[in-house]
Amino acid sequence: MKKIVECIPNFSEGRDQKKIAALVAEVASVNGVKLLDYTMDKDHNRSVITFCGDVDGIKEAAFNVAKKASELIDMRHHKGQHPRVGALDVLPFVPLKNVTMDECVAIAKDVGRRIGEELKIPVYLYEEAQENPSRKNLEDIRRGGYEGFFEKIKMPDWAPDYGPHVMNEKSGVTVVGARNFLIAFNVNLGTTNIDIAKKIAKAIRHSSGGFRYLKAMGVDLKERNVVQVSMNFTNYEKTPLYRVFEVIKNEASRYGVNIVGSELIGLIPAKALFDTAEHYLMMENFSYDKVIENRIYE
Amino acid sequence: MKKIVECIPNFSEGRDQKKIAALVAEVASVNGVKLLDYTMDKDHNRSVITFCGDVDGIKEAAFNVAKKASELIDMRHHKGQHPRVGALDVLPFVPLKNVTMDECVAIAKDVGRRIGEELKIPVYLYEEAQENPSRKNLEDIRRGGYEGFFEKIKMPDWAPDYGPHVMNEKSGVTVVGARNFLIAFNVNLGTTNIDIAKKIAKAIRHSSGGFRYLKAMGVDLKERNVVQVSMNFTNYEKTPLYRVFEVIKNEASRYGVNIVGSELIGLIPAKALFDTAEHYLMMENFSYDKVIENRIYE
Repeated sequence: MKKIVECIPNFSEGRDQKKIAALVAEVASVNGVKLLDYTMDKDHNRSVITFCGDVDGIKEAAFNVAKKASELIDMRHHKGQHPRVGALDVLPFVPLKNVTMDECVAIAKDVGRRIGEELKIPVYLYEEAQENPSRKNLEDIRRGGYEGFFEKIKMPDWAPDYGPHVMNEKSGVTVVGARNFLIAFNVNLGTTNIDIAKKIAKAIRHSSGGFRYLKAMGVDLKERNVVQVSMNFTNYEKTPLYRVFEVIKNEASRYGVNIVGSELIGLIPAKALFDTAEHYLMMENFSYDKVIENRIYE
Repeated sequence: MKKIVECIPNFSEGRDQKKIAALVAEVASVNGVKLLDYTMDKDHNRSVITFCGDVDGIKEAAFNVAKKASELIDMRHHKGQHPRVGALDVLPFVPLKNVTMDECVAIAKDVGRRIGEELKIPVYLYEEAQENPSRKNLEDIRRGGYEGFFEKIKMPDWAPDYGPHVMNEKSGVTVVGARNFLIAFNVNLGTTNIDIAKKIAKAIRHSSGGFRYLKAMGVDLKERNVVQVSMNFTNYEKTPLYRVFEVIKNEASRYGVNIVGSELIGLIPAKALFDTAEHYLMMENFSYDKVIENRIYE
């Protein structure tokens, strides 16, 4: 049973294509690693690489690309709208196949320690890799941004988990962790009334009383004359797509509004779709190993 | 893009476990082939091996197991309820991944020719590998069984496609072909009235005016106090599970009956479940390459 881990480094560079190509090449050249995707955003001045691989490959590729980012990107000259604290800003590891969350936590700690000690960059662990509840959330760690970290790093509560206890001016700090796969899934409503999308988002999201592993907001898609409930599923096994979809359908019907479509942003694990089919087809005896592809690739 | 073909040989031997183990071993020992499943049925005196592999591997394993069956199984002593014409009774090839139906037809013809010429067993091509419409259906070829083939083979319309034009007394004849993946999926209804299951089966199956690629019958599950619509989907892309499921739901509601569950018999391709999720979640932009596993295994 081959272990597969996903890694999604976020970099504070979204304009210089040559630099991004060099980061991508650093990942793609490692044995046992497969590049899945990369995107760059000029406004946010930010890029994201998605790759997967076995445990050794993922660790090597993650450290190598962290090193390359520390050479190529200089935070002293970085401008962009997106909150960020470092050249390699965030480095999450996600269990994809035959791998536990604990194994991903161990990978995050190994790679985090090397980034701290060998590259002299302060490292903060987050999500599942962090035990201190007040330092688990990315938003809490990143608050104040790169500029604010020159002071923040001196606070006793914000001593780094690895690396020097002083700011790295060129590279900033890096946030390393382990988390579940995140699904970005949006549902479109047949109305131009943004209030309805906002009310439904409020009804279903965790922060205001909804599902435990769901973030949601209402968005106006003016050019399409529809409004959208835009969502992040942070644990699709415990808060599944089909359950949230049916609640949205029901809440919308209360306003006489129909769902007119949905869209997936980025990638989705096969299991999230298998679970959906199993639910709607009311299967009594479904199991993962009834899917022929799951027998072929172990 | 690795090509993957499935092969599901049916043998007229379901009682002698040593012989079946020898057939399984013959398949499992071929490079590039993966054994997925095997089942034996004592009443039917019949066994089925399911395996997949690349084009070369599947051809080698299929021929080797045909040869082994001709050595181990003697049709002159075979008794069983299931219709059958040969020791290796039926040998279908199914496109699984990155393979066209035409390629599976070519494989069926290659292997069929070798079985005919090298093993001296008359071979009949069926389904997609057969151009003559009156010889496409397995039921038509198999009608009369092993015993009837001593005369049937002499009829001009039933000259074999490959091999000798006289019956092989020990091995019978073998039916070789290419077909789509077959999904066996049953829907249970919350009633003990078998007439309702039979009426619905009649409404949805091809033979009586229903879906083009669907076979269906009503079955009484007495021990569970439900009745069942038992189905074979012979082309799940053109006659999809979710569409048939919704028609059953609607037809059952006309009698005041609900669907209470469903069951999958054997294996299912991931795409049949992806298509189902895409339908129910009303996805606008779904594509196969949004599924992360489809990026990993190409």
